[in-house]
Amino acid sequence: MTRPLANFDGYVIDAAQYAKWDRSVFKEMRDGGVTCVNATIVYWESARETLSEIGKWNRLFEQNSDLIFLARTADDIRNAKLIGKTAITFAFQHCSPIEEDIDLVEIMHTLGVRFMQLSYNNQSLCAAGCYEKEDPGITRFGRQVIKEMNRVGMVVDMSHSGERSTFHAIELSERPITITHANPKSWQPALRNKSDDLLKALSESGGMLGFSMYPFHLRNGPECSLSDFCQMIAKTAELMGVGKIGIGSDLVQGHGNEVVEWMRNGRWSKEMDFGEGSSDNAGWPSPVKWFSSNRDFKNLAIGLTQVGFTQDDVKKIMGENWLNFFETSFESI
Amino acid sequence: MTRPLANFDGYVIDAAQYAKWDRSVFKEMRDGGVTCVNATIVYWESARETLSEIGKWNRLFEQNSDLIFLARTADDIRNAKLIGKTAITFAFQHCSPIEEDIDLVEIMHTLGVRFMQLSYNNQSLCAAGCYEKEDPGITRFGRQVIKEMNRVGMVVDMSHSGERSTFHAIELSERPITITHANPKSWQPALRNKSDDLLKALSESGGMLGFSMYPFHLRNGPECSLSDFCQMIAKTAELMGVGKIGIGSDLVQGHGNEVVEWMRNGRWSKEMDFGEGSSDNAGWPSPVKWFSSNRDFKNLAIGLTQVGFTQDDVKKIMGENWLNFFETSFESI
Repeated sequence: MTRPLANFDGYVIDAAQYAKWDRSVFKEMRDGGVTCVNATIVYWESARETLSEIGKWNRLFEQNSDLIFLARTADDIRNAKLIGKTAITFAFQHCSPIEEDIDLVEIMHTLGVRFMQLSYNNQSLCAAGCYEKEDPGITRFGRQVIKEMNRVGMVVDMSHSGERSTFHAIELSERPITITHANPKSWQPALRNKSDDLLKALSESGGMLGFSMYPFHLRNGPECSLSDFCQMIAKTAELMGVGKIGIGSDLVQGHGNEVVEWMRNGRWSKEMDFGEGSSDNAGWPSPVKWFSSNRDFKNLAIGLTQVGFTQDDVKKIMGENWLNFFETSFESI
Repeated sequence: MTRPLANFDGYVIDAAQYAKWDRSVFKEMRDGGVTCVNATIVYWESARETLSEIGKWNRLFEQNSDLIFLARTADDIRNAKLIGKTAITFAFQHCSPIEEDIDLVEIMHTLGVRFMQLSYNNQSLCAAGCYEKEDPGITRFGRQVIKEMNRVGMVVDMSHSGERSTFHAIELSERPITITHANPKSWQPALRNKSDDLLKALSESGGMLGFSMYPFHLRNGPECSLSDFCQMIAKTAELMGVGKIGIGSDLVQGHGNEVVEWMRNGRWSKEMDFGEGSSDNAGWPSPVKWFSSNRDFKNLAIGLTQVGFTQDDVKKIMGENWLNFFETSFESI
């Protein structure tokens, strides 16, 4: 299982990561042959706070220009592969950075943001979150936001949204949407995982799913085997089509427990919310053994081969599908 | 004086305007053959408020795409001339939008801002204003800001700054700086106008002056004649060189008196400050007869010809000098 797949030379694109970003992480991306990482830059931050997070990233780009750069287009990602660097795209896990100001969609797109989740676990100004009991669907503001995201070329991501809101977003959006990091609920019945009906509707509308390796989304959690994970991918490929799936690892590195508390609680609660964890399991989960850093994508390529995918299909799932999706999603119309 | 200069076909670039921007103003720009306007977008606004002003501009670009577009490079301005539209560049009259956050310089540059004044009348976090009695020169933060503006390609503008701070900025900046809108103090001794020593130092460092037609900066105010104004330009050309001067009209259109009060007082005073005016002359000054809208640049071209400038020099002053200056100023290094 740890045998390197020396001949895997395709695109490696990961649609969801959140790390305590520093040079060591970027070196691991290079070691792992990672072409592009869609980096979460904020959870609950305001517009002004988001500028500061982008400011920190701009410093990282300046200081690590030999390893990474900001990608604005699919061509930038192709170029990353040619020059041996990792392209970074910016993603919001929640719509808080646009506050209640439709003009901030284009402004954030100009600053490099290419993905925005319409809600994060809770009801937002745009959509319901997956932890709410009631899901009223996409709001009046949410409709305007989807339309504007469609116009400027920012991808609607419903990873943490409620099911009804997600069906609604698929219907309302004129460009394909995505669930960057989740797995089928039929494989592991987590609140964050998605029903087969929803995944089918997503793929039929041209949308994509990124498979998550965050232990709370996996059968048997941190003990999930690579083989079980890859068999789940094979089954999902039958449901959605092998052209509509990719990786959205949800890899988290280097953060202390204060960060998982921020993800779960932002500033919205004075009582501790444990999210997918619980009071006796409050911190970060341990990663699976076969995927704990950006060096481990080769294991996935091996696992996918072992469950019977052709090398062409492995290449699609590891990166080419996302590249094609980015190609038609990032440009303004 | 109102005879059109039918054959003036050079670049018309105005380094300072502030209007209640709307389609009628943009149509006047087209009628006047204006290639580029460096538009003031904020005075005392915070970072967050500046995003909203940029948001308003993005709507104007979308709604008036047949007339205007945002220019990021000198090539964009050349293209404006080719396709018959007016290029808009963004300018801050004050450093309030970057708050005390050096990272906001690059972020604002990414959003299109190409000029920032280091202070506006008052002492700022970066430099003294021209109305302060004491001028301590460029501050510790100001030095960092100039360095960062030099790096990303944002022009240092000292139009409303103190004399010592301006000499200091000329010395510290590794790229030429500018005074986008002012006139020589030797012609009209306004606090906002500049000494011959300063203008000489500015031109010797590669910097440029834009001539203002704001009545408070003119000899005889609104009664200033075109001939007197153009003779002043001819004299300044002898001092600075004909390659270091251009237009920065300070044309203001459509604003009520609440806007001149905002320019002068922001939120920094509870007592009314009258700026260049006075309690019995508190509002906007009347414009000069020969320059009251974007249709009137032709009068300037005529006036410059009449005081003896060659057609090549008229073209330089009307726009080519700014174009060359923008060419070397807007790119990141």
